[in-house]
Amino acid sequence: MLRVIVVEPEGDYNLGFIARLCKNFKVDELVIVNPIASIENAKPFAAKGIDFLENKTRVVFSYNEALKDLDLTIATSSIADIEKDMLRRSIKPWEIHDFILNVKNAGIIFGRESVGLTREEIMKADLLLHIPANPEYPVLNLSHAIGIVLYEIYNHGKRGTSGPPING
Amino acid sequence: MLRVIVVEPEGDYNLGFIARLCKNFKVDELVIVNPIASIENAKPFAAKGIDFLENKTRVVFSYNEALKDLDLTIATSSIADIEKDMLRRSIKPWEIHDFILNVKNAGIIFGRESVGLTREEIMKADLLLHIPANPEYPVLNLSHAIGIVLYEIYNHGKRGTSGPPING
Ligand SMILES: Nc1ncnc2c1ncn2[C@@H]1O[C@H](CSCC[C@H](N)C(=O)O)[C@@H](O)[C@H]1O
Ligand SMILES: Nc1ncnc2c1ncn2[C@@H]1O[C@H](CSCC[C@H](N)C(=O)O)[C@@H](O)[C@H]1O
Ligand SMILES: Nc1ncnc2c1ncn2[C@@H]1O[C@H](CSCC[C@H](N)C(=O)O)[C@@H](O)[C@H]1O
Repeated sequence: MLRVIVVEPEGDYNLGFIARLCKNFKVDELVIVNPIASIENAKPFAAKGIDFLENKTRVVFSYNEALKDLDLTIATSSIADIEKDMLRRSIKPWEIHDFILNVKNAGIIFGRESVGLTREEIMKADLLLHIPANPEYPVLNLSHAIGIVLYEIYNHGKRGTSGPPING
Repeated sequence: MLRVIVVEPEGDYNLGFIARLCKNFKVDELVIVNPIASIENAKPFAAKGIDFLENKTRVVFSYNEALKDLDLTIATSSIADIEKDMLRRSIKPWEIHDFILNVKNAGIIFGRESVGLTREEIMKADLLLHIPANPEYPVLNLSHAIGIVLYEIYNHGKRGTSGPPING
């Protein structure tokens, strides 16, 4: 089971896009901690992911509640070097799959648009993930970071298996 | 040189997010064909990618003009099966890098939020790219599709090179 956890999302459009991405990449559950954004206003941005928002999304009011029943949790950060003193293991998007492969319930945690995750929130997770990007501006918009992570998990293991070109 | 081409984008937010992603993943140039969206209204969504919108983005009024001076062009589609009758080669995001590696000027083309690229537009490109996703709903939002493609190109070749875990 893969749960996406988003802490205090602020933008309605991001919340909608996230639900759409959860459907695009077959996530099991979306858990939102203390949303600032409105689920109602998010709906137009979810497009055909609207049923995900209606049926597979839960709102909770504490961070600990969002992490409940998970066997492995992965926090995310736009800062590459944050990890060294904070967590034993820092991973890249293409490594996630190996870590969650044999895990029953895994959760990936994303932070606020404005200030990300707090140090305390990050330290409660097992792993820390950073998407490598331009060192001068590695801060992705929230839903775009989620899209990349979900794409990687969904498509893991397909590399190198593509067939020959269609007409030679 | 990597050029991102977006044909008749409709949403201001998407245009802003695309500029931000171009900066996040070090694209050289963004070319917009007949924008419906407003560049002015897009700016808040570009965050610190606003300079990309101001200095590295061009608006053109024909598709052919947008493809000028490119040695290789890659069209994109949310429909997986469109390719067979249309182009010699269909590729996946993780294969792009190999195709553009020895190319001087490459362009990747994205379509309208409402109707994607036309058949004619796709046939003018050399390759067709599809991001594999949920067969029941593989249609990503425009800027999220762009984010995934740019992430793949930027991070190509890093897989398998990550070091040992930080503290053992
Ligand atoms: N390069 C990257 N790698 C991993 N996650 C990223 C990312 N860029 C953005 N995110 C995700 O998007 C969220 C919002 S971006 C937060 C930016 C904020 N200005 C800050 O100071 O942290 C982050 O908490 C993280 O979950
Ligand atoms: N290596 C480090 N040394 C000291 N303080 C750090 C640190 N890494 C993070 N912090 C502190 O912990 C805070 C929370 S970490 C926030 C990370 C960021 N908002 C994101 O999600 O991408 C940071 O704002 C910073 O004040
Ligand atoms: N799975 C996917 N693979 C590749 N590109 C995609 C994609 N999903 C969306 N896109 C990109 O996002 C653009 C807008 S989505 C267009 C959807 C439209 N309803 C249609 O009928 O085509 C597409 O033109 C393409 O450039």
